This record gives sequence, C-alpha cells and structure tokens, in this order.
Amino acid sequence: MKLLRVGEPGRERPAVLAEDGRVLDASGVVADFDAEGLRREALDRLRAALAAGELPELPGAAGSAGAAAGASGAARVGAPIARPGKVVCIGLNYRDHAAETGAELPTEPVVFMKAPNTVIGPYDTVLVPRGSTRTDYEVELGVVIGSTARYLATAEEGLAAVAGYAVSHDVSEREFQLERGGTWDKGKSCETFNPLGPWLVTADEVPDPQALGIRLRVGDETRQDSSTAQMLFGVGEIIRYLSQFMVLEPGDLVNTGTPAGVALGHPDPKPWLRPGDVVTCEIDGLGASRQPVGRA
Amino acid sequence: MKLLRVGEPGRERPAVLAEDGRVLDASGVVADFDAEGLRREALDRLRAALAAGELPELPGAAGSAGAAAGASGAARVGAPIARPGKVVCIGLNYRDHAAETGAELPTEPVVFMKAPNTVIGPYDTVLVPRGSTRTDYEVELGVVIGSTARYLATAEEGLAAVAGYAVSHDVSEREFQLERGGTWDKGKSCETFNPLGPWLVTADEVPDPQALGIRLRVGDETRQDSSTAQMLFGVGEIIRYLSQFMVLEPGDLVNTGTPAGVALGHPDPKPWLRPGDVVTCEIDGLGASRQPVGRA
Repeated sequence: MKLLRVGEPGRERPAVLAEDGRVLDASGVVADFDAEGLRREALDRLRAALAAGELPELPGAAGSAGAAAGASGAARVGAPIARPGKVVCIGLNYRDHAAETGAELPTEPVVFMKAPNTVIGPYDTVLVPRGSTRTDYEVELGVVIGSTARYLATAEEGLAAVAGYAVSHDVSEREFQLERGGTWDKGKSCETFNPLGPWLVTADEVPDPQALGIRLRVGDETRQDSSTAQMLFGVGEIIRYLSQFMVLEPGDLVNTGTPAGVALGHPDPKPWLRPGDVVTCEIDGLGASRQPVGRA
Repeated sequence: MKLLRVGEPGRERPAVLAEDGRVLDASGVVADFDAEGLRREALDRLRAALAAGELPELPGAAGSAGAAAGASGAARVGAPIARPGKVVCIGLNYRDHAAETGAELPTEPVVFMKAPNTVIGPYDTVLVPRGSTRTDYEVELGVVIGSTARYLATAEEGLAAVAGYAVSHDVSEREFQLERGGTWDKGKSCETFNPLGPWLVTADEVPDPQALGIRLRVGDETRQDSSTAQMLFGVGEIIRYLSQFMVLEPGDLVNTGTPAGVALGHPDPKPWLRPGDVVTCEIDGLGASRQPVGRA
C-alpha cells in the first residue's frame, strides 16, 4: 500500500493511494499513521478494507497525489506519518558520499538525531535558517518503524521491524553542523529540515531496499544520482545496530544516509541552497517530493 | 505549583502536590502535562482550581510523594511530564565539569540530543545497557518549555518560555558516547537513561534558576555537589541560543549540563554505575529522585 496524509498541518487525515490514482479515506480504519496506526495489525486491517473496496474516496483530495501534486487547488499532502517519537540518522553511509566529504569509511554506523518537529510534508517549503550561509540538501531512504526494536540479534529481525519506506530529505546546515562546536545535531534540527513523502510504501511492496535508484535535483540540475546498493550498512543491519543503543518504536523515522553529490562535496563555489531554488527528491518505487526553498 | 504524574507507565494521571503533602487530582482541569497542559493558560486554570480548593485528593496516591516515595504500597510516580517532543542537552556547561573531563571551555553551548523515550519516573530503575562497561551518572537541572521558542532575541525571552524545572538525570554510557564513532547521541539514548522528577516546579516558584544547590549520591557517597551558579551559559541564554537552531515547543525538555564529579572524571578505577547501586539526585527546591540500578 501507499499511505499518505492529506490536509492542513496538524489536521492531516490518513489516506491510501489506490492503484488507479484515487485517494481513499483511511480514517475509518486507523486514527492516524502513528505508533498505533503503523503496527502490523492496523496495516493488515487497512489492507483488508482496501481489498474489500470499503474505503471511500477522500473528498477534495483529487490531484493531491502523483504528477499534479502541489498544483494550485489541490489539497495539501502532509508527511505520510504523524510526528515521529524520534528521528535517528545514519551519517556517511554511502561509499561515494564518505569519499566526497574526505571522511574515512566508518567501521560502524555513525548515529545522530534530528528534532522530530523538523518533519514536514513533501511539497512544503524548506526554510533557509536565519544567519545560514551553507544550507545543504541530502536525499535519503527514510525507514519507518512498525514494531518495537530492542536488542535485536540479526539484520533479518531488523528488516522485519520496518513498516515501510519513504523519500526523506535530511536538510543540513553545514556551518551549524561542523563549525559551531559539539555534535552534528545543531545543523540538522532547524525548522522544516525534514521533508518526508509523498507517501509511505509498506515494506511488503519493497522486496529489496538495497536496490533502489535515488536521485536529487536542484532546479533542472541533477546533483545526486546513486543507488541504495551503495550503502555501507543496509537497512536491516542499521535497525539491528540501533536497537543495541536505544529502543526503536512504531512510528519512529530512521534516515539511512545520503549518496554523493551534496553541496559540501562540490568544488568552490559550492552550490548551497538559496531562496527561490526548487529541490526534487526521488527514489525508485517511492515517488518524488518537491520543495521550494524560502527564508526563515 | 509542584506538578507530578501518578500511575503505571503510560497511564499516569496529572496531579498537584499540595503544601500539606496531599496529592491532588488535576485530571479534571488538564488531560496531561503535555504540549497542551503545560501552556501558561492551562497552568493558570490549574492554579485557580487549586486556590479555590476544587481539586479532589487522588485516590491511592498518599505516600507517593516526598520522603516516603517509592515505599512499598505507594502508587508509582512517573515523570512529571508526558513524553516530550524532544530532549535537548547542553554539554560541558559547568566550569568544574569541563575542567575534570579535560575539555576546553566551550565558546558557545555544546548541543546534543537524547531519544525522548529515555524519560522515566524519578524512582524507576535505571538499566545498565547490554555490553556496557562505563555507565555514568549526571545530575542536571531539567528545564521544561511552556511556550514556543523560535529565534528569540534575548535571554529574558528565553526565561519567559520556561514552564518549570525538575531534577533530571542524564545517564550516559561513555564508551558508546566517546569511542564508538560519530556523535554523542549513541551513548545518551539507551533505555531508561533519563529519570525525571519527582515533580515539576513551575517557574514562578524558582526566582533564580542560577542559584540552586545540585547534588548526586551513589549509595551514601556524595559524588556531585555544586551549584547552578557554576553554569557557563544560564537557562535563559540556553533557550535563546537553542531557538536559533530549532523550534522549541511546549513540553520539550532541556537538560542544562552537569557539574563535576561524574565517574568519567575520577582517577582509575573509575566508579561506573553497577547493578545494585542506588543513585540519589537532588536540587534545592526541586526535591530528590532515587533510582536503583539494574541490568538490561
């Protein structure tokens, strides 16, 4: 299933994108795509209701999903999950990106966090923070947790804990992240810094998360073009690893790292994001998001 | 007011500790001490109800608060706030602690995060993680946000955004934090790593948050004994500073750093926490928490 949430910020309704492109109202089956609504049993109920043709069309949502998304008059699409309990990120997890930043290949996953209130809808505006001169883009495979992960033993158990996948944009301010002391979190948690969606594709429809083309454009220019096959640590291993250090819960978001091509890795003058830019993030099978860039 | 939450994990009821030691039920006025219940208007309604004698005694809560807390038969006391939207922490913020770790005094606040699901009640058990050999203690002044803080201009505005204060215990695993690659978050987010409480003292009852004695004992041995006057960056400045990098929201928790005396700062053999230890954390006017140490 492709799960999405339609409506104004804080008032989104859970919905399912049908094969024929219609947006169906899921709110009669799950209250939201949150810790409760993302559990296996809830998704199974939703799948059964969809198969039985029991989900009514969501009024006003025509044109909100797919190619016409974000067009004037279409209802807003929010992030496909409710605000997560936490957003955990893996750094330097693509061979090509680690090389471009000059960092050594990590021997175990590099972990940092984003504030959960950075998560916004796939077509919402990304704001360059006040005082920022180095706002950067990072397209990532977003993994949403579907069952509690605590001291998992194997990568297979890690994969089994996944509810689904979504295009995630880990916007980053490099000066705040790297030159203002302390850890990376300071440059990762600014307002609007985690567009997510357009939808969450349930794990059963993504047979191999390590074989997905992943791309990002700024305007018409392709800046990132790689494959999740480039990941150093795969999705199952990441979940297993994280579960040794923290308890992952349904609804949590894990960003699994970005491939080469970020502005930081370019020769000078580096192409930092500027107000007026439009960023498109795309992953095979997961759709595309598109954010205009504004100013905080 | 002294706000607390009484009941089993995930089912706590909001309550007020009266001057005479009775625990009064606040659930008729606020649903919980969360983003809604911690706003100024909600706390004003609660204060009025308390003054008017309208809050009934909470059945079964006698003996839950104060000296007898945690005694057998007493109802459990949870964290005084619902799970926060985020937990933001300031590192190396006491002159004496920065010195003992050998770190230079930071020129601006060092920022890191803990997973919000680390927050537990003040008398709950802290679990030494599997594979841990260096679990450490850190008593901290916990600041709970009461109004949205975004690009604040002054430390005064920062202080005005505070709902209240609580004793916070920023439990840390030093090998995970410092020797496992990446940022500090990996050693800060383990299960049970943020006991909070016993209660939240509203900001109006803490005239100067920079003049509070702060102490931690392991068993009968005093390990930390300092004052919030030792902070490099005060509470108002921390909130103002953080608001340049992220949006703080009502219900968020900010841990403001720990004074000297952590196990990491001791000569070898360092006194890491071990199962069977009992840790007591205390701040003037904010009460004391007490956690037995177990094993995950």
